[in-house]
Amino acid sequence: MKGPYRESRTRAILKTVSWRILATFTTTLLVWLFTHEVGLAAAVGGLEAISKLVLYYAHERAWDHVQLGRREASPAVLWFTGLSGSGKSTIAEEVYAQLKRRGLKTERLDGDTIRSIFPQTGFTRDARDAHIRRVGYLASKLEEHGIFVVASFVSPYQDSRDFVRGLCNNFVEIHVSTPLEECERRDVKGLYARARRGEIQNFTGVNDPYESPTNPEVTVDTTTVGVDEAAANVLSYMQLRS
Amino acid sequence: MKGPYRESRTRAILKTVSWRILATFTTTLLVWLFTHEVGLAAAVGGLEAISKLVLYYAHERAWDHVQLGRREASPAVLWFTGLSGSGKSTIAEEVYAQLKRRGLKTERLDGDTIRSIFPQTGFTRDARDAHIRRVGYLASKLEEHGIFVVASFVSPYQDSRDFVRGLCNNFVEIHVSTPLEECERRDVKGLYARARRGEIQNFTGVNDPYESPTNPEVTVDTTTVGVDEAAANVLSYMQLRS
Repeated sequence: MKGPYRESRTRAILKTVSWRILATFTTTLLVWLFTHEVGLAAAVGGLEAISKLVLYYAHERAWDHVQLGRREASPAVLWFTGLSGSGKSTIAEEVYAQLKRRGLKTERLDGDTIRSIFPQTGFTRDARDAHIRRVGYLASKLEEHGIFVVASFVSPYQDSRDFVRGLCNNFVEIHVSTPLEECERRDVKGLYARARRGEIQNFTGVNDPYESPTNPEVTVDTTTVGVDEAAANVLSYMQLRS
Repeated sequence: MKGPYRESRTRAILKTVSWRILATFTTTLLVWLFTHEVGLAAAVGGLEAISKLVLYYAHERAWDHVQLGRREASPAVLWFTGLSGSGKSTIAEEVYAQLKRRGLKTERLDGDTIRSIFPQTGFTRDARDAHIRRVGYLASKLEEHGIFVVASFVSPYQDSRDFVRGLCNNFVEIHVSTPLEECERRDVKGLYARARRGEIQNFTGVNDPYESPTNPEVTVDTTTVGVDEAAANVLSYMQLRS
């Protein structure tokens, strides 16, 4: 291991072949144009083809050791914030799939998934804030190393989100602004009903506040906009066509 | 942005030039060998040089859109565990510097640095375990995306370390086994003295246990081995010469 990126032998072989077709055709044509001797043109072309196949392959493999001029796409942290049931995760999944389809290195961070891995993550203001800060740190470290991050968290507090914004290089805050009434009407996981019955404490929108982003980069309301259109809005903000 | 890795125009230009010198020399030699006509050989060589400069550059730029055969170095999580003052961080810093020098994508995670960023990180068994699990998750995500991680944490519990090992692909546990007496004699930060006076609770080695790794990949004791040698041991385990 002598550098971060390397190329395979297969790649060098394929390039050698595609170049040889292009180059030998040109050489043979040149010799024929100068001499009008088909035999000579074919002989030079044939010998050139054989010798340069070897040379070109060696040249490719030698350049593989040079890191100069290799670079990665400039990443971003896409942070979806909004009430439970607003459609954050669904849109985030679609954006994630689109980024992966472009071959970009992308990581998906989701509130529910991460809570199931981390012990000791409560729902008090302090616990939630600490949780979002830790996740934000993770996101910023991934971004720093060239990875797109698609994060979806209720993340109800402006302070926590601003802290994460400060850690990241290119932070895109996406407010999924579907109103409480609509989220509660859907109640996909039955959590609103339980919170209304007092079975869940600190439930955002019911007995805990949601502080709407003051200056989000993108806002989508899933009562009026479908998942595909919402994902397209996010990608178009990032100047990536869906 | 159409893929994770791209190459710059400068790289293509430099490759075009180096190839042209190699290739035109070969063609000119070939024509001369066949015809023994210096003028013809020079003319074909000259025209070939000009036409192929353009062709080769275009060929390089076209291949830049093909991701096939591009790959990264296979990373690892280097996890340094040991008592406060054992020399973990110092060796970790040296290993980190060596990996960076090789052009490898590397992230440094250190107990003290991370604690200063995260709120709510206590020193009880549960809090420490939760902290190590979170850091381990971060490390595993970075590794997943091709990044070397050099982590140094007291991480006194076997359970927490095993949890992290389970998350990672290539986990290298490095036990910095400098004995308690030596660590306490050094007492770089004066923490042992404070713990002995009862000013610090849950201090590993004094009033909290350190569970030595049962099967560490590397063990170093800084009473007998210097920093450079210790770093070299770690790198040689990874088959990287220092």
